[in-house]
Amino acid sequence: MDRRSFIKKSAAVTAGAAAASTLAAPAIAQAAKDMVIVSTWPRDMPGLGLPAQRLAARIAELTEGRLNVQYFAAGERVGAFDSFDEVASGNAQAYVAADYYWIGKHKGWAAFTAIPFGLTYTEIDAWTKYGGGQQLWDELGDEFGLKCWACGNTGVQMGGWFNKEINSADDLKGLKMRIPGQGGDVLSKLGASTVALPGGQIYENLVSGAIDATEWVGPYNDYFLKFYEAAKYYYWPGMHEPGAQISFGINKSWLSELSKTDQAILEAACNEENARTMAETNAFNGEYLRRLIDDHGVELREFNDDVYAAFGRAAQEVLEESRDHSDLAKRIMDSVDNARREIGAWTGISDMAYVQRRNKALGI
Amino acid sequence: MDRRSFIKKSAAVTAGAAAASTLAAPAIAQAAKDMVIVSTWPRDMPGLGLPAQRLAARIAELTEGRLNVQYFAAGERVGAFDSFDEVASGNAQAYVAADYYWIGKHKGWAAFTAIPFGLTYTEIDAWTKYGGGQQLWDELGDEFGLKCWACGNTGVQMGGWFNKEINSADDLKGLKMRIPGQGGDVLSKLGASTVALPGGQIYENLVSGAIDATEWVGPYNDYFLKFYEAAKYYYWPGMHEPGAQISFGINKSWLSELSKTDQAILEAACNEENARTMAETNAFNGEYLRRLIDDHGVELREFNDDVYAAFGRAAQEVLEESRDHSDLAKRIMDSVDNARREIGAWTGISDMAYVQRRNKALGI
Repeated sequence: MDRRSFIKKSAAVTAGAAAASTLAAPAIAQAAKDMVIVSTWPRDMPGLGLPAQRLAARIAELTEGRLNVQYFAAGERVGAFDSFDEVASGNAQAYVAADYYWIGKHKGWAAFTAIPFGLTYTEIDAWTKYGGGQQLWDELGDEFGLKCWACGNTGVQMGGWFNKEINSADDLKGLKMRIPGQGGDVLSKLGASTVALPGGQIYENLVSGAIDATEWVGPYNDYFLKFYEAAKYYYWPGMHEPGAQISFGINKSWLSELSKTDQAILEAACNEENARTMAETNAFNGEYLRRLIDDHGVELREFNDDVYAAFGRAAQEVLEESRDHSDLAKRIMDSVDNARREIGAWTGISDMAYVQRRNKALGI
Repeated sequence: MDRRSFIKKSAAVTAGAAAASTLAAPAIAQAAKDMVIVSTWPRDMPGLGLPAQRLAARIAELTEGRLNVQYFAAGERVGAFDSFDEVASGNAQAYVAADYYWIGKHKGWAAFTAIPFGLTYTEIDAWTKYGGGQQLWDELGDEFGLKCWACGNTGVQMGGWFNKEINSADDLKGLKMRIPGQGGDVLSKLGASTVALPGGQIYENLVSGAIDATEWVGPYNDYFLKFYEAAKYYYWPGMHEPGAQISFGINKSWLSELSKTDQAILEAACNEENARTMAETNAFNGEYLRRLIDDHGVELREFNDDVYAAFGRAAQEVLEESRDHSDLAKRIMDSVDNARREIGAWTGISDMAYVQRRNKALGI
């Protein structure tokens, strides 16, 4: 991309972090609008960080520099979990994050990332775009001055990294685990002590013993965080985030001042990156799972039926409690529940039924 | 979209068809480039036709009229299956089509739509974007002066509409069925007589008895084609098109004359519509399957293990024959085969394993 001029903005960069950069030389300098994007992901982290940077660069490219995009990874401008306030206040124009980080502000945010026993990638994308999800997301965003679009998904997650086998729900009691959102609420109900650390802080806590277990995403994403150095048992399938959707949250009043074309370009760039992140994750998970097992001695374990049944009961309680939060939270949860029944039934006789037969026929 | 000016181009329209239209008033009229898009889908057909029209409108919107887009549905400018030659020759600039319609020109085209026992939507998107698929598609396109991007997907298809039960592979013998691509080759090997009619011509052939059976897509797409009037048995899951990818095929020399920005916008618009078409299909398949059963007396049937085993053996022969076509066809088939084993194994322990457990827990 030789037409891009990378200009250091050192004043905005914390010590030791890579420099934030201007992503495109604006075609008409005097007309360019500044667009600061903050993120909950560490700089250059494969799987989530790099896709967020790719999205920032794409916005600069598609707007031909009409938007003067500056991207700040977690900690470069504000801490990961301060991204929401930075954008809602107008200090920055957009964030890239998992919206369930904001369940302390409103329980409804969880559903737009992932809920336990919720929607897979294809299901949440169907619900968001054509099943009423986006309208509910807009209604929730309005309460905070935000407009959110999906800009990434990492699919069905692994169940997490443990330093002991989990053979019954009792084995979860007293466990100190990093697991955010409603997945964390499920583990708490089963007696675990949960925390919601951002991605860049998990490894140090796991190695020091401050936590015993963690989940992050899946083989490709997790590989680079080196959890295998402190936890050997890698469980599948995760119940807590079956299709975690990443959010591009934009300050709504800033967005409304853009031209219709630039608003449409932002939406298109998010839609494109949403599918790209998923495609990249699916393309590499198989290969990195093999590397984890072959090169790092990771042991794959399947959650047994008893553990899954305990997850299921606790998840149902968590969802009911979310409904009690507010009228909007209730409508969001009802809509997700309806989608997982109607779209989920279709998944059962399409993707699930087909992959079972194909994998059996091919010995996969 | 009040800023769009719909101008009739009646000279280009066949009798009875809706008028092709100019989709955006160019911002700078003298700089606008004409972009004629032809399609293999009937005008306004839900599921595939409307998404193609949505893509054409989006290109006009995102380029702010720098591209003066005219969209012609099947038969409005050329017949559905003449779309390839129309674009390769430079008479039109792009087509929206299923590339397996062109297997008579090169066997390799099949893999970029769907092959029997091949990739699901999430798998083919991973393979295309991050597993080497796009590079092979580019190499094949180069032989014909085309550049193709994925611009739609309809997911795992139903097995098709039959006017008798299919209880063994013998029941397929002598059947006259509409099924194109390599799925058709599989049915031919099992003794059926297959044809590759475009979507707009299936109904009349089924009702007249010229064909006994047909497949098209799935409940949402098929509902509007009224096949239930002539065939009551609706089989699942299809083996022939587990994630049929729609292609936006562009005349490459025309594309190369566009600005880098407009080339990127075309790619982004295709990537966006690829996921939108899939989301729309998944959002509505469940509802329309229920309507087919409740309102039109359609009877759902599952292919039994014997029939599936026969499909599997025939599919393997078809793939081997494709390999023999040319070095490029062999490399394409090898690449798909590798992807379905590596990415398919991941699908097995992620989406498939999760949806089984969730649907069981929720009684879906």
